[in-house]
Amino acid sequence: MKVMIAGIDGYLGWTLAMHLTNRGHEVFGIDNFSRRRNVREVGSWSATPIKSMEERLKAFKEIHGKEITFYQGDLRHYDLVDLIIKKHKPDAIVHFGEIPSAPYSMIDVEHCNYTMMNNIVGTNNILYAMHKHAPECHLVKLGTMGEYGTPNIDIPEGFFEIEYRGRRDRLPFPRQAGSWYHQTKVHDSHNIMFACKIWGLRSTDIMQGVVHGIVTDDMTDDRLLTRFDFDEVWGTALNRFCAQAVIGHELTPYGKGGQTRGYIALRDSMQCLTIAVENPPDEGEYRVFNQFDECYSVNELAEHVVKVAGKLGIEARIWHIENPRVEAEEHYYNPDHENLRKLGFKPTHTLDEELEITLSTLMRFKERIEAKRDRILPTIYWRH
Amino acid sequence: MKVMIAGIDGYLGWTLAMHLTNRGHEVFGIDNFSRRRNVREVGSWSATPIKSMEERLKAFKEIHGKEITFYQGDLRHYDLVDLIIKKHKPDAIVHFGEIPSAPYSMIDVEHCNYTMMNNIVGTNNILYAMHKHAPECHLVKLGTMGEYGTPNIDIPEGFFEIEYRGRRDRLPFPRQAGSWYHQTKVHDSHNIMFACKIWGLRSTDIMQGVVHGIVTDDMTDDRLLTRFDFDEVWGTALNRFCAQAVIGHELTPYGKGGQTRGYIALRDSMQCLTIAVENPPDEGEYRVFNQFDECYSVNELAEHVVKVAGKLGIEARIWHIENPRVEAEEHYYNPDHENLRKLGFKPTHTLDEELEITLSTLMRFKERIEAKRDRILPTIYWRH
Repeated sequence: MKVMIAGIDGYLGWTLAMHLTNRGHEVFGIDNFSRRRNVREVGSWSATPIKSMEERLKAFKEIHGKEITFYQGDLRHYDLVDLIIKKHKPDAIVHFGEIPSAPYSMIDVEHCNYTMMNNIVGTNNILYAMHKHAPECHLVKLGTMGEYGTPNIDIPEGFFEIEYRGRRDRLPFPRQAGSWYHQTKVHDSHNIMFACKIWGLRSTDIMQGVVHGIVTDDMTDDRLLTRFDFDEVWGTALNRFCAQAVIGHELTPYGKGGQTRGYIALRDSMQCLTIAVENPPDEGEYRVFNQFDECYSVNELAEHVVKVAGKLGIEARIWHIENPRVEAEEHYYNPDHENLRKLGFKPTHTLDEELEITLSTLMRFKERIEAKRDRILPTIYWRH
Repeated sequence: MKVMIAGIDGYLGWTLAMHLTNRGHEVFGIDNFSRRRNVREVGSWSATPIKSMEERLKAFKEIHGKEITFYQGDLRHYDLVDLIIKKHKPDAIVHFGEIPSAPYSMIDVEHCNYTMMNNIVGTNNILYAMHKHAPECHLVKLGTMGEYGTPNIDIPEGFFEIEYRGRRDRLPFPRQAGSWYHQTKVHDSHNIMFACKIWGLRSTDIMQGVVHGIVTDDMTDDRLLTRFDFDEVWGTALNRFCAQAVIGHELTPYGKGGQTRGYIALRDSMQCLTIAVENPPDEGEYRVFNQFDECYSVNELAEHVVKVAGKLGIEARIWHIENPRVEAEEHYYNPDHENLRKLGFKPTHTLDEELEITLSTLMRFKERIEAKRDRILPTIYWRH
């Protein structure tokens, strides 16, 4: 299949580009390098010393013998999106081209609006260009489990059938997102659902859990490594804990640590996204996959990291710090995740196995994490 | 109370400014005149020959003896919003400062993104400035009944308590909006709900039905008239039917005409908004009012117009034309609307009484409607 990856320079984008190409798909992608800039803006960097896109593509060709086509450009420019989709008429577009950080979006009004506009306009431009030039194309859109918030009932996959005052309907599950960034994903979901309805487009909206991990089987050379963020703004819970352990920093769950979410390893995310790409929905179908392996509380994650780190000779400690976010720290959480399993998804490693790989790989980049030790503890508070 | 009106030059904004001022409130407002520009852009104009803001303010002072303060500016510029809210610290902000047309938002990708950005960024800027300078202020935000779509169950006011798989929760009612414009209102609702949660702001989100009518008691002079749109882009169903009747144009329900919505007269909208302003919610409370008088199908509306027009000696005919929109033309529709009634809302006129006032007033502006006869039939289709 011909697959376009929007945000191909990112953590997931670069990893998926290699994965799909090695499976025989024809991959091209677009990126404006905003992630590299935005991480620099907050004074941080990737733990892995990632190469420029030029070097990545060269190394990938040298090592795996395959080409990936790259366009540098911004999804907010409709004419560019139109041009690329018109030229390639992809079978699928995997859309990672969004600013993915809750704390970044909460810095101030400028970062709130920048995240909103970037994410919403980029997605709308893709929808319009698909409608115009590739109406059969399948949009695989990266959303987040965070769209749902933490309701006191089970979380279905996107839709639920309910009875209310004696009548029944199948409705979109209500969204209660916890940051401006998460809100942009909710807005995208509504916009995409609408585009599928009026134009007959097809889309898989991926409500992904928190991704963790550092390597996949395609990264057979350090020049092919993807980025690994660990700072307060761009690092997510589990990856940040691993980075903290490696430099002897306390692991810092926010608040009580009872916040429970779905988690998935980077390699399993690739497996899931591949399943989505290779099993497109019908014309006009908007479907939702809750994409994660298992649910853990932040405290459970910290304890797993302490245990696995200990096995590697690292003594890690836990320090509960004030929660910078506004979120429930103890709550019911029971999301469905059957759709991908029905299509064949099988997680490959236990959490501890994956953590061992992550921690031992990260050890090689200890100095780069140490150099940004001051960027790990939170400074961005939801309530200013 | 000190009330800021965002979008004070518009159909509702100008009318409410006079209404609240005459009730003794201190009113100031902001507008970038985008509505006047956007109506010109599609080759149309207001049936009523509205005056410039300068003339309106002068006439209002001359006739009613009261001052309204006006700022020309764009809500998308945060610094300006910050400056004005910091200076005045209003008790309430009534936010009409959005692009309110479904067809306009559906013209093409530029109009889609313009509507999205204008509405979302403007609202976010107000939320941030409130949080910073007027945390006690009450945001009365104009949303639309169109946010809900047409589910097969009753529509509560914003939230519903449901049982799902044996557990219960009170959740936001799912939104299924039918145009990019309507989607922006959904996005705003999510963003405002979140701001109330994290910052303790208070807001009333008005899910307003379609407004119709041309005058209120404050318009004691033609210089004080508010705008009245009737073209395919800016006119809404009932006002458009009245304009059609006046120039002997067939009334044109879209499709089968079974589309049912809530409707409210302009003067009753003013009554409701005043009730909302004068009865603010608690700190941190986000509440939703479904603001309409009665529900009618498009066919019923057309029949009411035919009947009342006949009484005024106008023979009106109905012509069912192809529906440019993607929407259910026959559906269940039963929205709640108790919140405003509990606070004292009482509709003042029957639909036929209000239609008689609208039609007879519009007769005076027949030439202005006739001059734009070519802008009434739809040319913007949801499916291009």
